[in-house]
Amino acid sequence: MPLNTLYVKKGFEKTIYNGHPWIYKNAIDRVRGDCSPGDCVEIKDWRGKFLGIGYINPASYITVRILTRKKENIDGRFWRGKLKQALDFRKKLGIDALNAYRLMFSEADFLPGLIIDKFNDYLVMQVLTLGMERVKETIVKILVDLLPVKGIYQKNDIAVRSIEGLSMVDELLFGEVPEEVVIDENGVRFYVNIAGGQKTGHYLDQRCNRALLNPISRGAHVLDAFCYTGGFGLNAAKFGAKSVLGIDASEEAINAARRNAGLNEVGEICKYEVANVFDRLRELEEKGMQFDVVVLDPPAFAKNKRAVEGAIKGYKEINLRAMKILRNGGFLLTCSCSHHISWDLFEGTLLEAAKDAHKSLRVVAKTSQPSDHPVLMGFDESLYLKCLLLEVS
Amino acid sequence: MPLNTLYVKKGFEKTIYNGHPWIYKNAIDRVRGDCSPGDCVEIKDWRGKFLGIGYINPASYITVRILTRKKENIDGRFWRGKLKQALDFRKKLGIDALNAYRLMFSEADFLPGLIIDKFNDYLVMQVLTLGMERVKETIVKILVDLLPVKGIYQKNDIAVRSIEGLSMVDELLFGEVPEEVVIDENGVRFYVNIAGGQKTGHYLDQRCNRALLNPISRGAHVLDAFCYTGGFGLNAAKFGAKSVLGIDASEEAINAARRNAGLNEVGEICKYEVANVFDRLRELEEKGMQFDVVVLDPPAFAKNKRAVEGAIKGYKEINLRAMKILRNGGFLLTCSCSHHISWDLFEGTLLEAAKDAHKSLRVVAKTSQPSDHPVLMGFDESLYLKCLLLEVS
Repeated sequence: MPLNTLYVKKGFEKTIYNGHPWIYKNAIDRVRGDCSPGDCVEIKDWRGKFLGIGYINPASYITVRILTRKKENIDGRFWRGKLKQALDFRKKLGIDALNAYRLMFSEADFLPGLIIDKFNDYLVMQVLTLGMERVKETIVKILVDLLPVKGIYQKNDIAVRSIEGLSMVDELLFGEVPEEVVIDENGVRFYVNIAGGQKTGHYLDQRCNRALLNPISRGAHVLDAFCYTGGFGLNAAKFGAKSVLGIDASEEAINAARRNAGLNEVGEICKYEVANVFDRLRELEEKGMQFDVVVLDPPAFAKNKRAVEGAIKGYKEINLRAMKILRNGGFLLTCSCSHHISWDLFEGTLLEAAKDAHKSLRVVAKTSQPSDHPVLMGFDESLYLKCLLLEVS
Repeated sequence: MPLNTLYVKKGFEKTIYNGHPWIYKNAIDRVRGDCSPGDCVEIKDWRGKFLGIGYINPASYITVRILTRKKENIDGRFWRGKLKQALDFRKKLGIDALNAYRLMFSEADFLPGLIIDKFNDYLVMQVLTLGMERVKETIVKILVDLLPVKGIYQKNDIAVRSIEGLSMVDELLFGEVPEEVVIDENGVRFYVNIAGGQKTGHYLDQRCNRALLNPISRGAHVLDAFCYTGGFGLNAAKFGAKSVLGIDASEEAINAARRNAGLNEVGEICKYEVANVFDRLRELEEKGMQFDVVVLDPPAFAKNKRAVEGAIKGYKEINLRAMKILRNGGFLLTCSCSHHISWDLFEGTLLEAAKDAHKSLRVVAKTSQPSDHPVLMGFDESLYLKCLLLEVS
């Protein structure tokens, strides 16, 4: 059965030609034929020139996500090809040798709406769109065929699913999955919750940034603010830190961090506190505490464009305080995972904080996501993590 | 003797407060007292507020370079403090364990006009300004005291020296220096010319970017365009490349590359050609040659703002051709060392090339200089190297 055709309004074809894989509702001129939500459509520009094939969901403002720029059948062979490409990409980069990595990063791996993380032999899948939800059984079969998989679990606690009209209930898709597994990252071990009630997972996207602490941790007193389950601080402890103070507002996260410290036999070095980081940074400054390394890995302060102004204030405050509690010549590892905070905004905010703190900042490393979370050029939305390792003097 | 005072025009104090260490001729309101070129002056804003101390050279459009923001004496103790700070910075980052690194990176190490590279126990110094030229004997004494130095050689073949009214003749400043030394970088050995007639040095700033080739080189056919003395290609060969083709327009560079290949016993793998890279890329495309990895490390196409437009054309052409001679899913490591080509311009140009080549680009790594060439925030001029490792499919 031939696909229905969707025509893009004049002028809106440009971003698509530049590699952007989304078609917003307001860019659609008309659809020829009846489409059910989740169906594939052939996309053409206003002159009738073929642009690609994507799946449609009128319930979402991101109405179409492009799957391919070629005239090809969207069938089992197609899905297999895309999953194989994602796996081969990681093999070529040596990432498949890790026991925990992101196997599929949605649009940036050419399968919009699908995220798969691998923890040992277990896969955790997030399906963000109706278009992908409809083919997930096919996806599961292919994954089991491509990889030595013991279990596949679908985590559905993602807000965007409700926009797409999808349920939020987790689901076992294949085999069996334990409640938690132990993974190794840069030689540090972590409990990672897969199924079950606990919500303390593991952010795979900071793997390489945590390794930045390696040369500067020996003998250092380290503050790990917004420590979550201990990722940065435990890397520092393994690399020879003298002390690590981890702070997070979530008791569940701090409990997990303490367990992870025990797992790595650094419970003596790593101390954890449940606290509001803003308040605690102010107290540490007032007490005249000094650290050699401060890590700031806050949650996204700006979840949308309107929140940017407030977010900037927040970033400035925590970075200013961090600069003040650093010893002269100490290191600040500071992150933003808000897509809406651009590099320019983030760096400008850090410079403002440095001016107020009368400090000079030197860039030791400027990074984003590791290569198992690739950035697709022309699709800025795939770049979200910004990380700077700065010397502060 | 108290320093003479220089007043900055109203409005021009802002960039200085933001951390920029230069005062252009047009930003100077007046100087109180008689200054000889190279003298230190106290810098004040239009209200008479102290901004810092710098050295002056009316012959240069960059008339003053700021040495400090504190009221302190610019004496032996001061120079020693700055050199020690640069060394300590590298020690904290573990860079001092390398046998070749940049020890002093001018403004970004808080000593404007001074660059020092360390190759084994030999230092190669570049003095860019009159202000630094006047204190170089003091600098040499301190260096000999701080480090186990066998020789210090001053390379003066830098155009900017003539603006400052300085000679272009090389000079031995301390001990003895051989004509060349052998250094080790990422496990690869290189001859580096220090003194004498040959001009084939070694670009220390690509050390970490060359290491990016590590995971992707095994079994790969690699094209190293603008290969100079073989840096990228020899790293690829050591990491297991099946073949390396190096191209450079300079016969002297190609001879050095061949010698370096011999030194690393990869002369069978690495072939070199003296050729114009633009012409040769076109020929390789016409012949239908295919590579797994292409490296583009051209010299600065845009040496000033006026040259940007032409430079963009050049970058687009070589990157477009590189994309066409890459196997599907191959890797392009592409650089720009033009300060005047911003990240946005560079990435925009790559996207244009990708559109013409009908390719998708995914960012595996986005880097600049290694941390022995730090970037001083607020001083954009210290960021000059842009490097992207891209998957092309």
